[in-house]
Amino acid sequence: MSEKRKRYILPEEEIPHYWYNIQADMVNKPMPPLHPGTKQPLKAEDLYPIFAKELCHQELNQTDAWIEIPEEVREMYKYYRSTPLVRAYGLEKALGTPAHIYFKNESVSPIGSHKLNSALAQAYYCKEEGVTNITTETGAGQWGAALSYAAKVFGLEAAVYQVKISYEQKPYRRSIMQTFGAQVTPSPSMSTRAGKDILTKHPTYQGSLGTAISEAIELAQMTPNCKYTLGSVLSHVTLHQTIIGLEAEKQMEMAGEYPDIVIGCFGGGSNFGGISFPFMRHTIQAGKKTRFVAAEPASCPKLTRGKFQYDFGDEAGYTPLLPMFTLGHNFAPAHIHAGGLRYHGAGVIVSQLLKDNLMEAVDIQQLESFEAGCLFAQSEGIIPAPESSHAIAAAIREANKCKETGEEKVILFNLSGHGLIDMASYDKYLAGDLVNYSLTDDDIQKNLDEIGDLAK
Amino acid sequence: MSEKRKRYILPEEEIPHYWYNIQADMVNKPMPPLHPGTKQPLKAEDLYPIFAKELCHQELNQTDAWIEIPEEVREMYKYYRSTPLVRAYGLEKALGTPAHIYFKNESVSPIGSHKLNSALAQAYYCKEEGVTNITTETGAGQWGAALSYAAKVFGLEAAVYQVKISYEQKPYRRSIMQTFGAQVTPSPSMSTRAGKDILTKHPTYQGSLGTAISEAIELAQMTPNCKYTLGSVLSHVTLHQTIIGLEAEKQMEMAGEYPDIVIGCFGGGSNFGGISFPFMRHTIQAGKKTRFVAAEPASCPKLTRGKFQYDFGDEAGYTPLLPMFTLGHNFAPAHIHAGGLRYHGAGVIVSQLLKDNLMEAVDIQQLESFEAGCLFAQSEGIIPAPESSHAIAAAIREANKCKETGEEKVILFNLSGHGLIDMASYDKYLAGDLVNYSLTDDDIQKNLDEIGDLAK
Repeated sequence: MSEKRKRYILPEEEIPHYWYNIQADMVNKPMPPLHPGTKQPLKAEDLYPIFAKELCHQELNQTDAWIEIPEEVREMYKYYRSTPLVRAYGLEKALGTPAHIYFKNESVSPIGSHKLNSALAQAYYCKEEGVTNITTETGAGQWGAALSYAAKVFGLEAAVYQVKISYEQKPYRRSIMQTFGAQVTPSPSMSTRAGKDILTKHPTYQGSLGTAISEAIELAQMTPNCKYTLGSVLSHVTLHQTIIGLEAEKQMEMAGEYPDIVIGCFGGGSNFGGISFPFMRHTIQAGKKTRFVAAEPASCPKLTRGKFQYDFGDEAGYTPLLPMFTLGHNFAPAHIHAGGLRYHGAGVIVSQLLKDNLMEAVDIQQLESFEAGCLFAQSEGIIPAPESSHAIAAAIREANKCKETGEEKVILFNLSGHGLIDMASYDKYLAGDLVNYSLTDDDIQKNLDEIGDLAK
Repeated sequence: MSEKRKRYILPEEEIPHYWYNIQADMVNKPMPPLHPGTKQPLKAEDLYPIFAKELCHQELNQTDAWIEIPEEVREMYKYYRSTPLVRAYGLEKALGTPAHIYFKNESVSPIGSHKLNSALAQAYYCKEEGVTNITTETGAGQWGAALSYAAKVFGLEAAVYQVKISYEQKPYRRSIMQTFGAQVTPSPSMSTRAGKDILTKHPTYQGSLGTAISEAIELAQMTPNCKYTLGSVLSHVTLHQTIIGLEAEKQMEMAGEYPDIVIGCFGGGSNFGGISFPFMRHTIQAGKKTRFVAAEPASCPKLTRGKFQYDFGDEAGYTPLLPMFTLGHNFAPAHIHAGGLRYHGAGVIVSQLLKDNLMEAVDIQQLESFEAGCLFAQSEGIIPAPESSHAIAAAIREANKCKETGEEKVILFNLSGHGLIDMASYDKYLAGDLVNYSLTDDDIQKNLDEIGDLAK
């Protein structure tokens, strides 16, 4: 028999009841976020005006390793979880590698990506404290679609700022958010001061996640009974995404294997942390030898070429100062189609882990990511999101190394979402119209010099 | 707790090993297809030039109730099956109905619809007999995408004729097929005699499944070592789709319920038959009282307003004559966005069952289908394919009846696919730009008169 397929699904009762908070187990804790005015370490209360209270506490929690998933959120998780862990026999065959490649298929969530895991949690906590309206930003639209649906589930009104370049490249994601009943505005817009400021300076600016975050925070602060929600970067978002790795851990057990390498694509860090941290706890606690690889776009290389320093999470400087690997909050990323990875900084946990060499990072060019995405589509039948294709590309690199050495390494990556809304970018790739982007060290340094030392 | 969700997944070992052939259990067997030249009942051998041999025998098999699923096909099924059976608590709540609504979620297949179930089988049988190239038609592109991937799995080259109106309405499905490596041509095209003939008569003709079938058959006959494959209508296609209902039967048992009403949308009949026939066998064998409802578009109403007679399955008249409810193989359907339902006839099994009152049919207008689709999206988080929205609309009608009567009926429908590639049609619906289409009795009769009695 030439074709072989295998996937692992957990019985409902095995779906985790707790998220995993790696901060509690880290020997070197992340440095504290700073209040941008006082430059003093942030308290949870400082975040109350922006986020639901419970999320503020989760954000700064460095003591509890396990946070209980509220029953209503678990109930919604049951609707699409566990997501399958799949042995990628098709891809292995196409590569001719002795490696065992597994992927966690988050693309089967109703909205098509892992983003729903945190959207449901955030919308739930907002509803619980009586909030009626929520705002957010979105790049490619995966997060915006998730939040729009989660808002509908918990009876909230949602307003989404979508990065203009993605709004135009992927009009169907806007349609999805609107079908779920959300209000969608391309960012930068004239509806906020942050948007107006940048449009005045750069009238043709196509937007970035950093700018869209500023606009969404500003709208939340101007709207009664409204909170802001974020799709990645922050520690509480990554916390919610650990459901991915916790399930994968049990599913790898079903498969009788343990990963040598765990890979996630990297925008702000939540899907990477989600798949990695539950495995990393065995590295921290028991010295398990596993490599954790974040795959970022070469055109937005904060982990591989950015600098560790305090920086804002958004373009306008509305957020606390975060200790992160960053290209500068003023960084304008190239127009790659992996819109979800076009972000200047890395979350504080991942930044600390990278400093401590508990993980590594690789950068992937746009063309390599699409080549990997097409090979995966043809061999596994799923069109991957351009973001996820960065993880696939990194997995293929590792699998090809195994082909050279003959090693049967176990590689696990997170398929964070499908690319069915991104077909226009596949069209361009197949037509030879996509390009790579490069940055000089000077480009990067100039940008960082411009913002200077913000913690002083 | 306000939100509730429940889905049922079969353990891998419970995935059926056999398809169910309802022909064997039917008291009144379908009338035989006729050879178009001799008007004599068709033998399996007559179909050998067009289809893989095993499929020709499946097509005419009226004796074996259970057909074993080949191991290689089962292996591929394991990759995405069982698909979940979901209790649609969200929809029930939105409707305020006492009915218990379940849907079988075929949209989680890697290509996004149930079509893969038969595509894998057909591609497998072709490969087994040494075929190297396959052709097919596609409307909205769900079948074409499935076949393109299945061809890739079994190492075959695929050429797809896509109905021109859908090729233009849904360009991303073309991109998907191309990403899987298939050749895609809009139909009618100048590459076949059938295409040339209709373009000569009607230069602006936007195509139909009937015409695309003619073109695909012609190409298969002109190409060495090439077979044609079909996405619906024929009995062997429906046979493969019974995996849906067979799984659903076990999953309904897990839920401790049995459906009072089973609903599928209706194009040629394969997804409707797929979900219905396994349950219908208990009606035939044991007198179970279940209603089976086919939901067809009001603009293409072969079941509710067509005539039962011998007709061709394609526009040019290349197929055998089939005893079917039909609007005439020359029928040009309105440009509704449910491209997969734009077909003039119904499969021979369904046609016989409808004659025998073992099932019913309802017609759904385009606007009602989109209204239902949006309500489903908001309450269940899945954007349904416009085709599937016809089944949802019919389910909502039944659930609303239960609301009036207070009955807790159990309603099961097949969510045949997601609509992520169809967002342009949702945009148009939300903007108020979609319309209903109506046909007069005279329109229908005139068309049927034009073709006359083909069996004489």
